Amino acid sequence: MTILAISGLIRPMLEHRLPEGLEVRWFMTHEEAMEAVAEAEIGWFDMNDQQAMAETLRAAKKLKWLNSIYAGLDFLPMDVLIERGITVTNGAGINAITIAEYVVMGMLNIAKGYREVVRAQDRHEWLLDSPGKRELAGSKALLLGYGAIGKLIEPRLAAFDVEVSVVRRSPGPNTLGPDDWRARLGEFDWIILAVPATPETESMIGATELAAMKSDAVIVNIARGSVIDQPALVEALEKKTIGAAFLDVTSPEPLPADHPLWALDNAHISMHLSGRAQSKMFLRSGDRFLDNLGKYLRGEPVAPVFDPRLGY
Amino acid sequence: MTILAISGLIRPMLEHRLPEGLEVRWFMTHEEAMEAVAEAEIGWFDMNDQQAMAETLRAAKKLKWLNSIYAGLDFLPMDVLIERGITVTNGAGINAITIAEYVVMGMLNIAKGYREVVRAQDRHEWLLDSPGKRELAGSKALLLGYGAIGKLIEPRLAAFDVEVSVVRRSPGPNTLGPDDWRARLGEFDWIILAVPATPETESMIGATELAAMKSDAVIVNIARGSVIDQPALVEALEKKTIGAAFLDVTSPEPLPADHPLWALDNAHISMHLSGRAQSKMFLRSGDRFLDNLGKYLRGEPVAPVFDPRLGY
Repeated sequence: MTILAISGLIRPMLEHRLPEGLEVRWFMTHEEAMEAVAEAEIGWFDMNDQQAMAETLRAAKKLKWLNSIYAGLDFLPMDVLIERGITVTNGAGINAITIAEYVVMGMLNIAKGYREVVRAQDRHEWLLDSPGKRELAGSKALLLGYGAIGKLIEPRLAAFDVEVSVVRRSPGPNTLGPDDWRARLGEFDWIILAVPATPETESMIGATELAAMKSDAVIVNIARGSVIDQPALVEALEKKTIGAAFLDVTSPEPLPADHPLWALDNAHISMHLSGRAQSKMFLRSGDRFLDNLGKYLRGEPVAPVFDPRLGY
Repeated sequence: MTILAISGLIRPMLEHRLPEGLEVRWFMTHEEAMEAVAEAEIGWFDMNDQQAMAETLRAAKKLKWLNSIYAGLDFLPMDVLIERGITVTNGAGINAITIAEYVVMGMLNIAKGYREVVRAQDRHEWLLDSPGKRELAGSKALLLGYGAIGKLIEPRLAAFDVEVSVVRRSPGPNTLGPDDWRARLGEFDWIILAVPATPETESMIGATELAAMKSDAVIVNIARGSVIDQPALVEALEKKTIGAAFLDVTSPEPLPADHPLWALDNAHISMHLSGRAQSKMFLRSGDRFLDNLGKYLRGEPVAPVFDPRLGY
């Protein structure tokens, strides 16, 4: 009988919907998890404590399929996943809708200087002119990363008459190759980072790239803090060689209270909340798992698959 | 020779682009305006002082065409415009793009509770969960007013997978008749007011309409403060019988510092800034005027025409 080890937190949503003929081992604590996964073929054991989750994976010696609600799984031991040939399905796209919405919100807030409007209301002060006077319409965006999130950002921005260029290997209209975008950086009003966290994307935006941007360019980062050379970014924002940054992610997280980014008037920190700004993630994740479970039991391929060799 | 009376403020943008064979009377002060318009056939004399502008209109006894950058001209004496048969072109649509962008920004800010994120950054506090957890995707919006602004709001929201219903006289898909929308108010997550300010739209949202809305419904008003019965709105917000209001317009403007709307945690006041959050309005207005001037001189119809009998 196929053995599943699943976090008890998901039990209320899943229990009555699982197919017959499975042995399900629910667990609540890390200790229970270590025991539950020992014989499991299928595991879904997301934990806030990333180290505990990595340990649980090491203990799951018979695991063939690991499911997770998370999109980024770079904290797991990739060598274990590769050596044991474990199929991994991740949460790519599960919260992509709200993240795409968040990106447009951040861009609009910066365009209109809306943060100053919020602060003025808190003072009961009626502003006579808009602190920001940019329109999205007619502006140009460079979208780095064309996964589930990037694919949702693109049509939303297009509806605002933003000209969106995407970076991808296969050529197409408004497409830049992986080696071409750096030379074109100076053309864009918005640089949106939606790439996966891999060795290849680490510090892909550094001092050189920042220097190549327009003086009013805005960076939007919903990828990982490590994608940007953060000290170089702080310097560019302090010297105002770029316009602003909307940072859903930072290095580290949480950002220490005395970090210079907090107080910069052109840095907008959204505390990795973009993906949390929805209430449908667990529902969507459960639906997807059940769909994949049916496929797995029928011997069909599951999706989306996380490749531990690529890191996404 | 056709005489034009035009505000000197517009001179740098227009002077070198006007066609030959016109007598242009530029003016700077109200007194100069009163003199300049006396013999003018064409006038463009927008003034911050609405009463002075109305007086100038009364003094323009030979005026055949009045142009304005403003969309709402309800402060002018409509009887004078009607009696003298003056053609009026207004600024309808000139700042429609930024207003449509502002509407989506306001909705996203409320959906994600972003105001609390701004305040948390000001405290250097890393929030662990999103203060707002709504997605635009899958929500339903009622759009009252389908003029230049409404027509730009609709496709922007559609790109976010919002189901938009519009109110208009001619039937069509996702269209409610002027007498039908009140009975359907309880179906919508967003009620967007983009109607012109006319006797018909005055207080169109009152206690009855507010009571018919969902308990988490959000009102967005970019029309005029007078379109809502504001004391009834304050009460609904205080008692939380609706979710929130994003108010670009209020009664009066500016809102007095001790007005209850300022401090309500579900009232968002944007100080009539939506139309000002751009830098292209004068350029677009000048381009439109020159286009219309050519048409006028060739005897062709100008656009968009403001009808003083309808008030829009």
